[in-house]
This record gives sequence, structure tokens and C-alpha cells, in this order.
Amino acid sequence: MPAKSPVLVDLKFDPAMIAKVLKTAFADRGSINLADPASKGVDLSHVDYALLWKPDADIFERAPNLKVIFSGGAGVDSMMSIAGLPDIPIVRFVDRSLTVRMSEWVVMQCLMHLRDVPGHFRNQRQRVWVPQDGPEAGDVTVGVMGLGVLGCDAAAKLKVMGFNVIGWSRNKKQIDGMETFDAGELDTFLARTDILVGLLPLTPETTGLYDASLFSRLRRDGALGKPVFINAGRGKSQVQADIASAIGTGVLGGASLDVFTVEPLAADDPLWGLENVIITPHDSAMSEERALFRYVEEQIARFERGVPLLHLVDRGRGY
Amino acid sequence: MPAKSPVLVDLKFDPAMIAKVLKTAFADRGSINLADPASKGVDLSHVDYALLWKPDADIFERAPNLKVIFSGGAGVDSMMSIAGLPDIPIVRFVDRSLTVRMSEWVVMQCLMHLRDVPGHFRNQRQRVWVPQDGPEAGDVTVGVMGLGVLGCDAAAKLKVMGFNVIGWSRNKKQIDGMETFDAGELDTFLARTDILVGLLPLTPETTGLYDASLFSRLRRDGALGKPVFINAGRGKSQVQADIASAIGTGVLGGASLDVFTVEPLAADDPLWGLENVIITPHDSAMSEERALFRYVEEQIARFERGVPLLHLVDRGRGY
Repeated sequence: MPAKSPVLVDLKFDPAMIAKVLKTAFADRGSINLADPASKGVDLSHVDYALLWKPDADIFERAPNLKVIFSGGAGVDSMMSIAGLPDIPIVRFVDRSLTVRMSEWVVMQCLMHLRDVPGHFRNQRQRVWVPQDGPEAGDVTVGVMGLGVLGCDAAAKLKVMGFNVIGWSRNKKQIDGMETFDAGELDTFLARTDILVGLLPLTPETTGLYDASLFSRLRRDGALGKPVFINAGRGKSQVQADIASAIGTGVLGGASLDVFTVEPLAADDPLWGLENVIITPHDSAMSEERALFRYVEEQIARFERGVPLLHLVDRGRGY
Repeated sequence: MPAKSPVLVDLKFDPAMIAKVLKTAFADRGSINLADPASKGVDLSHVDYALLWKPDADIFERAPNLKVIFSGGAGVDSMMSIAGLPDIPIVRFVDRSLTVRMSEWVVMQCLMHLRDVPGHFRNQRQRVWVPQDGPEAGDVTVGVMGLGVLGCDAAAKLKVMGFNVIGWSRNKKQIDGMETFDAGELDTFLARTDILVGLLPLTPETTGLYDASLFSRLRRDGALGKPVFINAGRGKSQVQADIASAIGTGVLGGASLDVFTVEPLAADDPLWGLENVIITPHDSAMSEERALFRYVEEQIARFERGVPLLHLVDRGRGY
């Protein structure tokens, strides 16, 4: 039996954490960590599997015989644009922990706008007692854009919390207990939506999608007074100048943003200081390294047994 | 058939709102609103039903022939201490909307401590980008004290969000899918609890219950580092000086308080300014007037049909 191929690892996460967790991962086949100086110039022509997040530009030249590529995150947009991407299966990271953490963030942000947490924090800093009696979750419709694993889990949990939830995806999806809309029904979907939750992948179609025109089509007579925009998908799907001006003019009443066109968000960006805009530093759902390595091990085991890989990227769609 | 008795209303809520909503409530029997100057000195001796929240001290002298008392809120502690409280059924207000709103608040506060929202808000004000990778909900145990309608609904929703949830009530309750503890098992319950959620009624036993000694018995080696105290029950169940000093010494890592010993909380109270202490002005779940009147109408209809009243106060327990 030939030796098992090691896993090539090029993850631009926290290098110390990756190095530490890799020591005990992939015990039966080993790994080659490109962040390790010892890997410099090493021959990668025999490697079957690569686990990548924002990899080196020459990665596919150096490893020309890959059989499967694993993405270190749920999104694969940065991978899709690398020159020389081979025509082999690409597997997205779909992790229970990632899904749970994303839903924690999405549900929390929806509740924080429903219950006016930014206003409560301002009152607390000023030490003033101003009880509020706003709408309840059932008076508010959350429109979730993107009905993949993350979108469906968030939608189900928002419903449990009492929100009215509708969903949008490019192609119509049938989901129990949720009204859904497709590409041709975008205006109808937006006109019903009080809180828009963006969980879309980055593709040419979704680049710059969340702009002034889209914000102006959200529901304007809802229980919150003004619509709210929440994005935990990809920063390049939003036009950031349009968010700031929509907050300024009252087209949007608030926003929660975890992703940005350029990260980190520059210290002088106006978004940091806008009323009712909640900024989190792309930490809504960090990939946990141990879970990632376990996931890749399980998928390789499937592949080597001849069982189909899960969560394959569709190159036509781009995600 | 004799005329139906009107409903005596003495609700120390927003008087304008009460007056407005009362116009269309109790259409078949009418109401007497004590806040209305026209009710001054009017004969109340024929009145069967009273809907009360912090009523006048002479209310039971003026209306000596009441058959049922309805509380305007979920808590009845302020009612129980009125001199001359007659020995007739007292019905608590248990409203779907009240329950939904309380669970919104409780789940949101637990998520805000899990995801360090106070720290994120500080970073946002300073415009610094500091991603955090804290524990996920499943690493954290929420201990709910009080397993009535509100406690059970909050517990079920916390479980959906992924938290590990345990419950405590004076007398043991069997609840599907949740480990529960009773009075004799308080220390065991506290030692397992990372986030303590107080939803207890105010009784002699629960007065001053949340004190330095109790905080020191919470779990100290949990995933959050330090335990968190959340109170949406009654302010007099907490020793506020002990909360402030427990935050100062690190016995508690954070708190969310909606209720206070004296309300409004004084502007010079140190709690307003403490790190990781979230103050809301007793607005976690306001009674919605229309829902309250509808509820009282339904209960009177039951009573007059000879069907047992729901949500009766047990005078022995005090709630």
C-alpha cells in the first residue's frame, strides 16, 4: 500500500494557532504547512489534498497534481479568482460550529435592533431612565438573503424567537414554514422586509448588490419605523458609501456589519461613528481550526472510500 | 338578567394610553377608571371585578364586594402587601406577548454576554479592529431560576440557540429535555451555572436572594472565565451593593439588570458606569394594554360560565 498523501496547508489565519493544532491533526498522513519555514522550496508535486484560505498565488504551480481542494472557510470567492485554479473538486467548510456561531450573531443582531440596544446603551452612558415599548418580534419581518446552510439555520432560529421570516435565493427554494422568493421576485421580497439579513456568497451577481437602490426598496411603513440592514456574508457585496448615506438620510434606521469591502475597516471610516450602526470585526463566526481539520479528515476518508464529497462548490454558480 | 358589573381599573401605567385603550375595551360591561377625575367619590360597592397595578391604598375599602382581582402584571408582590387584601381569587397576567418579549430580552442578554457585546461596543467607540473568538453557546451553561411560564419559555429558546440550560425552582419540576434542581440542590445548581438568569417572583424567601454569597457559589472555571448575573424578575431579590462589588472584584464578569431595588435607578448609582454591566429601565417586557384587557375579558367570561380561572395566585407561596 502506497504511503498516504499528506495534506498541504496554506491558511492565512493565526499562524501560531495553526501550527499548534496541526501537531495533532492528520495523524495518519501528516501535513505540510506552508507557513513553516522548513516547507520552503519543498517538492509538492506528490500532494493529493490542499486545505487553503487566501493561499499563495503560485500554489497550483507548485502542487500541480491535487485531487481535491478544501476551503478553510464557508466562502470560496477569494479562491475562485486565483489564476490556474485546477478543474478538480472544491469543498466548502460547512461546520456545525460555524453555523451555530453565525446564527448566534444573526439572531443577536436582529434582537438588538428590535429592542434598540444602541439607544439603551446611549441612555445608560448618560444615566437616564427611559423605558421603551417597541414592537415585538412577531410585528417585524426579517428577510434572509441566501438560503444555504447558514441562511436556513438562522431563519429557523429567528422564527423560534418570534420573528416573521421570509427568504430569498437566486433560484426558488421550497422550505417548510417559510415563504420564499427568487431572483425575479426581489422587489416583492424587499417591500416586505423590515430587517434584511445578508448571507450571500460573493459572486459577480452579488458584488455591490446591497446599494442605495436596494435599500430604498425595503419596507418603509413597518413596525420599526425604518428598515435595518445586516450583513454577515461578504463585504464586497455592499456599497459602503451607500450604507453611510442611507443611515444619514434615514433610508435605513440602522445596520449591523461584520464584513467590509476592505478589512480591517480603516480607523477613519465614518461607519464606526454612525448612530445605530453596529460594527463587528469579521468575527461573527470564526472557523475553529480543530473542527476544520477534523472536517477535512472526514471528507478525505469519504473520498478515499469512493463516497461522494459533501458541500462541493458549483463552479457555474461560483459557490 | 341583571346588568353586568363594570370592571374597576386602577393601573399606574401610562394614564393617557390606559384611557385611550379603555374606550373600546369591556364593551358589554363598561369600566370605571380611577385615573379619570369623574370617578372621584363614585360608589364602587356594586363592583365585582378589579384590574389593578399598584392600586390606591383604600381600594378594598371602597370596593368591598369584589369577586376576582386581576393583576396588571406578571408579578403580584406589590398587591400582596396591601392592607385589607380580601380573600378572593387573584389572577396573574400571563400573556403570550409578555412571554415572547421577556424571552427576547433574556436570550438577547445571554447572547450579548456570550459574544462580548460590551467589549465590541468599546472597541467600536475607539475604532479598533479586534476580532474575538470566544466560546460558542454549547460551551456555556445558563441556569434559569424560576420555572414558571416565563422561565420555561426562555429556557426552551436558549436551548434552541445552542446553550446548555439547567433550571431551578423551589419545588422540583419535571421538564422535558432540561435538568432541574430544587431548593435543597441550590449549591449544585449554582456550581454548574455560567450565566444565572433570575426570573423569580418576589416573596419573603426571594428577597435579597441574589447576594455576594450566592454569586461566589457560581461556576468559576467555565468557558466565559467568570460568571454572569442576569435579573429580569424583581429588583428586591437582588442586593445591589453586592452586584457592584462582585463586578469590581471579578467574582462576576458581567451583569444585565432590568429591575432594581428602587426604580428609577438613581443617576448617581455606580451600576450605570460599571464595565460589562448592561442596564435596561424595567422595559424587558411591558404589559401591552390591549392584550391585558382582552385577557381580563376572557377570564371574566370563564368565571361567569363557571369554568376555573387560569393563573391563580397561590397565597401560601405568595405568587
